[in-house]
Amino acid sequence: MTAQRWVLAARPDGVPRLSDFRPEMLDLPPPGDGEALIRITHASVDPGMRGRLTGDSYAPALGLDETIESAGIGEVVASRCARLPEGALVTGGFGWTTHAISDGRGVQVLDPALFRGRVRPTAAIGVLGVPGLTAYFGLGDLGRPKGGETLLVSSAAGPVGATALQIGRELGLKTIGIAGGGPKRNYVLEEVRANACIDYKAQNDLTEAIRREAPEGIDIFFDNVGGAQLDAAILNMKPGGRIVISGQVSEYNQETPRGIRWVTPFITKRLSMSGLVVYDYRKRFPEAQARLAAWIESGAISYREEIIDGFAELPRAFIGLFGGENFGRRLVKM
Amino acid sequence: MTAQRWVLAARPDGVPRLSDFRPEMLDLPPPGDGEALIRITHASVDPGMRGRLTGDSYAPALGLDETIESAGIGEVVASRCARLPEGALVTGGFGWTTHAISDGRGVQVLDPALFRGRVRPTAAIGVLGVPGLTAYFGLGDLGRPKGGETLLVSSAAGPVGATALQIGRELGLKTIGIAGGGPKRNYVLEEVRANACIDYKAQNDLTEAIRREAPEGIDIFFDNVGGAQLDAAILNMKPGGRIVISGQVSEYNQETPRGIRWVTPFITKRLSMSGLVVYDYRKRFPEAQARLAAWIESGAISYREEIIDGFAELPRAFIGLFGGENFGRRLVKM
Repeated sequence: MTAQRWVLAARPDGVPRLSDFRPEMLDLPPPGDGEALIRITHASVDPGMRGRLTGDSYAPALGLDETIESAGIGEVVASRCARLPEGALVTGGFGWTTHAISDGRGVQVLDPALFRGRVRPTAAIGVLGVPGLTAYFGLGDLGRPKGGETLLVSSAAGPVGATALQIGRELGLKTIGIAGGGPKRNYVLEEVRANACIDYKAQNDLTEAIRREAPEGIDIFFDNVGGAQLDAAILNMKPGGRIVISGQVSEYNQETPRGIRWVTPFITKRLSMSGLVVYDYRKRFPEAQARLAAWIESGAISYREEIIDGFAELPRAFIGLFGGENFGRRLVKM
Repeated sequence: MTAQRWVLAARPDGVPRLSDFRPEMLDLPPPGDGEALIRITHASVDPGMRGRLTGDSYAPALGLDETIESAGIGEVVASRCARLPEGALVTGGFGWTTHAISDGRGVQVLDPALFRGRVRPTAAIGVLGVPGLTAYFGLGDLGRPKGGETLLVSSAAGPVGATALQIGRELGLKTIGIAGGGPKRNYVLEEVRANACIDYKAQNDLTEAIRREAPEGIDIFFDNVGGAQLDAAILNMKPGGRIVISGQVSEYNQETPRGIRWVTPFITKRLSMSGLVVYDYRKRFPEAQARLAAWIESGAISYREEIIDGFAELPRAFIGLFGGENFGRRLVKM
């Protein structure tokens, strides 16, 4: 059978362009012993994928002509693999491809019981997938929240940020978002139900704007953006504050990133800052997914998906993320 | 009786100048009930004092006309306070003053048994005082060292850095220093006995220089400098690496500090960065001082003091720290 996939045609310089991606046809053999054929129904586009497209000093880059990596959901359509029965709903890092042959490694068979009512199957690569799990483990493990503390979250209308704010509320935190533009701010206030939301585009001085919303200071900053937003948060942290580095979307397209100016407050205020890669928590995914699904089912956590139609749209959907146009989790229906 | 002291005459703009300080005479009354008179024998000068001289957004500033703060050693010369018997050797934050009246709060009576052989009384505000304790708790608690790991330390010829390297060696770490200039590098190799030392002044590319000395990567970076040295270390950290922010001497005199460019590796390499204020560990000071004294007595840890003679020299001794001229712990004999 023939699969279609997108490969890396050229390494992006700054914001990726359409010409950095090339579609290809690929003949797939029938699954061998211990293998299964998966039909991908949805693939994700995510700002965090940007780093793998460029060679750099600390992480191996994707090779030219290799399939673009991403999370996906699929269905097992033919199987000679006991772990992947035919008809199973599965998730994994399939990449931008319509079909994949798998021996089951790195593929999770999803429990259909998770998906009912408000929990749609696409949530498997959204609020129950990498974005939601990043919020869950980043806030819960690295943030070390205690009831009554104040949580600030950047990119608050994004899939990670909106989930982090809602988990924070369920854990008894005061929640403040930072988002760009009135519609996103309204979404954070009305659907995410944060206690406050700062539209950074409407502020000359973000440091002062945070201070107005949290005169008591910030205990936990959950950061998806980096740069100037991270600096403004550092200047508002309480002594003993924790900074969780979940993403740095303002930095990914910079050859030399801006970074932060304020390291001295780490001493005077005993701050700590930690980054996470969610796959380090793989063994605890089922626990987290069950808890998140229960929160969604009860209405405590809402999520928003933007589903773009068609394999051909994948590069455009990805590039658009860096223009700040997206809202909630962006998926492409294959 | 009359004490002499140095007060803050003007807030420094950049590197402090002599005119920012003013000497004053102060009449001290005899100690009241519950008080003691302490004659200060030695006061410290420390780069970390710089922050308190300027008003900023996160820590209260010293007031104009107030005594410059510093650690000191003294002797109780008259007492109506049970905690401070006459003749006792004491240490505390007395400031740049020749005498002080104290009710005992914040003053530690030193156990004379600590001071014998290689452990001189001046060590109480050096290797057994804030610098040594910062090295001890910063490396031991925030650094979470495991035998066989690689430790990188900036300002390696300074009192904090040199102690951190030696504690690291005693804990079974591979130790690498960064220092400025040949004499400091030699001191770090010969007296501190680090496994390697990089003279950053002799390197065009500090990131590459660290990579050559630690091709396996850095597990713990103990940083006293900040800025470009911190960036170069971040690019060399191993996954799971810990960065201890002990000082940021390259930043203290900058109105807008340089900061760091590289926050994205905190995600990809799961780094963590934490700052400390050593006074948070006050309850454990005796335990740490006993262990450090035993290491010194056995010859495992050496320390170097530069003792400048005369109360009048205090501002000059402090200002000189920012020119990189000092070597080991700098004290002023009153």
